[in-house]
Amino acid sequence: MFFASDNAGPAHPKVMEALIAANRGYAKSYGADAIMDDVREKVRTIFEAPDAAVYLAVSGTAANAILLATMTQPWQTIFCADIAHIQEDECNAPEFYTQAKLTLVPTTNGKMAQADLQSKISGEQTRGVHGPQRGPLSLTQVTEKGTIYTLDEINALTDTAKEYGMKAHLDGARFANALTALGCSAAEMTWKAGVDTVSFGGTKNGVLGVEACVIFDPQLAWEFELRRKRGGHLMSKHRFLSAQMQAYLTDGLWLDMAQAANARCAHLADGMRGHDLASFVFEPQANIIFFQAPRREHKRLLDGGATYNVMNGDPNAGTPDELLIGRLVTDWSMTVDGINQFLDLLHG
Amino acid sequence: MFFASDNAGPAHPKVMEALIAANRGYAKSYGADAIMDDVREKVRTIFEAPDAAVYLAVSGTAANAILLATMTQPWQTIFCADIAHIQEDECNAPEFYTQAKLTLVPTTNGKMAQADLQSKISGEQTRGVHGPQRGPLSLTQVTEKGTIYTLDEINALTDTAKEYGMKAHLDGARFANALTALGCSAAEMTWKAGVDTVSFGGTKNGVLGVEACVIFDPQLAWEFELRRKRGGHLMSKHRFLSAQMQAYLTDGLWLDMAQAANARCAHLADGMRGHDLASFVFEPQANIIFFQAPRREHKRLLDGGATYNVMNGDPNAGTPDELLIGRLVTDWSMTVDGINQFLDLLHG
Amino acid sequence: MFFASDNAGPAHPKVMEALIAANRGYAKSYGADAIMDDVREKVRTIFEAPDAAVYLAVSGTAANAILLATMTQPWQTIFCADIAHIQEDECNAPEFYTQAKLTLVPTTNGKMAQADLQSKISGEQTRGVHGPQRGPLSLTQVTEKGTIYTLDEINALTDTAKEYGMKAHLDGARFANALTALGCSAAEMTWKAGVDTVSFGGTKNGVLGVEACVIFDPQLAWEFELRRKRGGHLMSKHRFLSAQMQAYLTDGLWLDMAQAANARCAHLADGMRGHDLASFVFEPQANIIFFQAPRREHKRLLDGGATYNVMNGDPNAGTPDELLIGRLVTDWSMTVDGINQFLDLLHG
Amino acid sequence: MFFASDNAGPAHPKVMEALIAANRGYAKSYGADAIMDDVREKVRTIFEAPDAAVYLAVSGTAANAILLATMTQPWQTIFCADIAHIQEDECNAPEFYTQAKLTLVPTTNGKMAQADLQSKISGEQTRGVHGPQRGPLSLTQVTEKGTIYTLDEINALTDTAKEYGMKAHLDGARFANALTALGCSAAEMTWKAGVDTVSFGGTKNGVLGVEACVIFDPQLAWEFELRRKRGGHLMSKHRFLSAQMQAYLTDGLWLDMAQAANARCAHLADGMRGHDLASFVFEPQANIIFFQAPRREHKRLLDGGATYNVMNGDPNAGTPDELLIGRLVTDWSMTVDGINQFLDLLHG
Repeated sequence: MFFASDNAGPAHPKVMEALIAANRGYAKSYGADAIMDDVREKVRTIFEAPDAAVYLAVSGTAANAILLATMTQPWQTIFCADIAHIQEDECNAPEFYTQAKLTLVPTTNGKMAQADLQSKISGEQTRGVHGPQRGPLSLTQVTEKGTIYTLDEINALTDTAKEYGMKAHLDGARFANALTALGCSAAEMTWKAGVDTVSFGGTKNGVLGVEACVIFDPQLAWEFELRRKRGGHLMSKHRFLSAQMQAYLTDGLWLDMAQAANARCAHLADGMRGHDLASFVFEPQANIIFFQAPRREHKRLLDGGATYNVMNGDPNAGTPDELLIGRLVTDWSMTVDGINQFLDLLHG
Repeated sequence: MFFASDNAGPAHPKVMEALIAANRGYAKSYGADAIMDDVREKVRTIFEAPDAAVYLAVSGTAANAILLATMTQPWQTIFCADIAHIQEDECNAPEFYTQAKLTLVPTTNGKMAQADLQSKISGEQTRGVHGPQRGPLSLTQVTEKGTIYTLDEINALTDTAKEYGMKAHLDGARFANALTALGCSAAEMTWKAGVDTVSFGGTKNGVLGVEACVIFDPQLAWEFELRRKRGGHLMSKHRFLSAQMQAYLTDGLWLDMAQAANARCAHLADGMRGHDLASFVFEPQANIIFFQAPRREHKRLLDGGATYNVMNGDPNAGTPDELLIGRLVTDWSMTVDGINQFLDLLHG
Repeated sequence: MFFASDNAGPAHPKVMEALIAANRGYAKSYGADAIMDDVREKVRTIFEAPDAAVYLAVSGTAANAILLATMTQPWQTIFCADIAHIQEDECNAPEFYTQAKLTLVPTTNGKMAQADLQSKISGEQTRGVHGPQRGPLSLTQVTEKGTIYTLDEINALTDTAKEYGMKAHLDGARFANALTALGCSAAEMTWKAGVDTVSFGGTKNGVLGVEACVIFDPQLAWEFELRRKRGGHLMSKHRFLSAQMQAYLTDGLWLDMAQAANARCAHLADGMRGHDLASFVFEPQANIIFFQAPRREHKRLLDGGATYNVMNGDPNAGTPDELLIGRLVTDWSMTVDGINQFLDLLHG
Repeated sequence: MFFASDNAGPAHPKVMEALIAANRGYAKSYGADAIMDDVREKVRTIFEAPDAAVYLAVSGTAANAILLATMTQPWQTIFCADIAHIQEDECNAPEFYTQAKLTLVPTTNGKMAQADLQSKISGEQTRGVHGPQRGPLSLTQVTEKGTIYTLDEINALTDTAKEYGMKAHLDGARFANALTALGCSAAEMTWKAGVDTVSFGGTKNGVLGVEACVIFDPQLAWEFELRRKRGGHLMSKHRFLSAQMQAYLTDGLWLDMAQAANARCAHLADGMRGHDLASFVFEPQANIIFFQAPRREHKRLLDGGATYNVMNGDPNAGTPDELLIGRLVTDWSMTVDGINQFLDLLHG
């Protein structure tokens, strides 16, 4: 009954096997390993982007910050959701790497609306040299709230960005969960929808720790490499990153794991529906559920052995009836039995 | 016959086993995993430093840059060898993380002399607010040239630093190779010799990619954590770093691997001695040999299947008699047979 | 009829005379001039702060950015008004100097409310190492909207900051205008109200270009000096900054000029009151008026020879009846006749 | 007898008059003043560069740092003299503005030799993504030692830079002194000699504090403006910078003042020649003399009322016969009588 985060679960056995297999003899370091050649081709095929530059990073924060730095000048501002990971959870990594700032766009259920983005963009850069200049748009799919932009919604946001000559970055820490939920192609969710660079997440979906950075305009590639190196993010024994990503992308493992995570989440959501104390804050769409319940109910669940985060208060201190929001996250490794155990506790 | 670098070899099977073992169920993320508790204790025990703060990083560049940033103000200058890795091989990562500059101290056989360090330090900060202020000393052990500072030499350098109120950092990418060559304790080579922080390398010595950052003054710990996070270097599935380091430090595996690497190097050096075309640039002390030979000889070796770096020219283009310097690096995984194969080629 | 900005008017003749007087023979450079000694004492006396560190800067942006950098760590966030100059008009100078970020507090009539500040502060630093840490509060007096915080309001904001261990900076580009409007002492509006550092403006109030940076905790002084130098803001012929500030502070010239600017503004406001097309957006308190009028009315005024900024639209393009906001700024050099000329135009 | 620095002398009366004249009524701020239009044209005419972008800055450090930042990427290294002002006297301002590093080229009598520059350049960027990449060359004319590069020497250095695709910056804090000594045109000493950007100094040559930044490639202009603004270096009451520079460039005042400074220096040098205790370290060429004399002689001169810097020791403490180096700097305002007074003291 561990629902705290999809970054706390195990890696898939096939990923571990790939690591073992890669650990033979000598391999060129710093990304020149042969496995990386295959990874590059696999990513290009998946994204239908034969010219894309493809790199690996060890963390989502690194992937986001280095990609954004490659797209942003220090006197610009990056437009993102007010609850974006790059705003709330990266301890100023984007500011560190870009030297720029963030402009926060309000969100509903985790998503920015085109009109709000438009309003924020048109509000910046109205002061000539005095104000921050317009930098890229960064959007997150799956959002921090577990919701998913439709392709139309992504297109609307990037259309607005393009109107102002801005590029778009997609923080895809849960890219696979979104893709499988939408049932579309990786190309449709990215460059066909106006996205220029992608943090293509693996860490939250069954690997040990690797993200791919996908850059559709190969002219940015060399700058990315230099920025990655000076950030301390170019791994010498790179084959161990490559091997993870290779296994992840082989035979659709990445999609299988995301489908499993989403299916468990759907099963969990179905089981929670109609419970008179717990209600969804918004309809779950991927592998995350935000639900509201009285403090006493959270306490009962946590004392009963469930592990998850209560987002807006201490479950153990305060009035028993206060409504608090809990977050449940599923990953590929969860079993139906595990979910049912939680549901039994909930309904028990 | 692969002697290009100790970052191109495989990880030790025990390290891989530890990874597999760590991949069970859920674990707290971001360094709160139980394995890290054990790693912290192991490092403290090895360094005889019960209060030391201990963190993990995925690359030596990251370990160096974040540690130095924690010790340096942006208006200071870091004193280091003119051939230091932080100067030559990190694409300005130290400048990026510290916002400061480096002052280069001349070296002989890879090592700074106390008098030269003294001279450089006394030359800085003689201009009040106008010039760079004195920041920390950073020294590298094993040096980039494969030579080793004696404990007396380290003490002399840190004594000079302390005279000026400066702290000292040790880039120990090949810490174990130095320790085993000197036959001293980790404490003797660090805090007992005036060193304040250590990049304690693992990557070049048989793990997949992990370095420990050891900070003897725990007051710097929280700043280190914040700087690591905003550098994108706090891993979510941290247990996989912890597991590598745990295996590395268990039952002296780290020392065994370094001893093996050094022993292979000594065997290689012995075999090369007296060869009339190849002569050592300086006496090998750890796991690196710099040797001089005519271009035609390098070409013969490389064509014969040996892999190593020629440092100062193209082995395939130029006059056959020009003397070029080759670098041979050994690691834990090399066999005596493999070494002998190279020696046969050399003498053949 | 020039109301575009108080940074477009002339310097006071006494300031020019002081410059001429200072231009005799040789003077120590970089702030060691004798005039600066007098300036330092004058500022300390005005602020009743005998230990304060006092420095000069050539621009308000520099004063703000260097002071904030001295108070902020790169992993923190600075709390400020959503319309603060440091947010909107400094092209990321605060981010450049501090490497940190800004958290925007909503404003009404240009002012932050304690509850909103409290809410923003408590919302940050709830994520341990992952989120931005709490840095200083920065507040602006006179605000960008020409309104003035009462002493109670300042105290309320700094009390909230202190609760969280945060320091407070005051952007006093129009410090004198606020002081004369409130009728309080400089000490009451700053350190007695919980303010730790002040950008004490001169440029908008009758000098050529000089701001004093006042730091009540002298322990921050040396860091300020280093940051000023590396920002390129330590003037060699510093006596020409000192002379301006000395004249500004002699015999209350600074207050006289602010009183004149405020009095002209009050006269202008009185004359505008009751006009059926132009209404105040909020009651003017210092030397700035924001008024709303139909586009056609703005066009008539501007065509008639008035110069001022229309904040939210093009006065020459659009429907004639749309209400647009104009900003009128007065300075010490304006005459009653000049104001009346505008009023005649308005009412004509 | 004040020879400490040319940044300690007065401004020329014509410059003061221009300030007074500029202080009439309202003027557009932030560089949009009419005087700046004239300054821009004057600079373009002087440099025979009708398309050059021209900006003003308040300090040489700012001019250097912002120009270099406009020419340098954060992962590059700037090649400059080991005694360059940007290395020794700017408290890491270049590193702050560029995020890059400096590579120091050895100097003789303050000047870099082409072969040494070539050697340093070819030594960098030999490590692919790992090492710093080649950034611009920065050279100083007049050098910090008071010597002057011939046009051939400048051409040789910039030729070497161009070979590697590098741009060149000229720190011309004493531009006029060099120009008048060489008897060439501003164009010949800059773009015709391969220089791309110039810090065109005024502060050390008779103004209060203003430098022009001249950028021959106007495509860099907008980036310069943004970097200047975010450095806090865009002055609101910009007309007071413009007015200084306008007076400086009118009727050859800038050259007259430099000629006067150089002539006084030559007179001083002539008077010192043949003195048996004081000998030149190198032949003076502009307005700076470095001379060697026993400590007791320096003490006698300083006690006798002369003011100048002793560069390498305390004139009041140490053995009387130790040879120390003194630096004498002349400026436009010195009289022959003043020089003679010093010579009388010297020979007395």
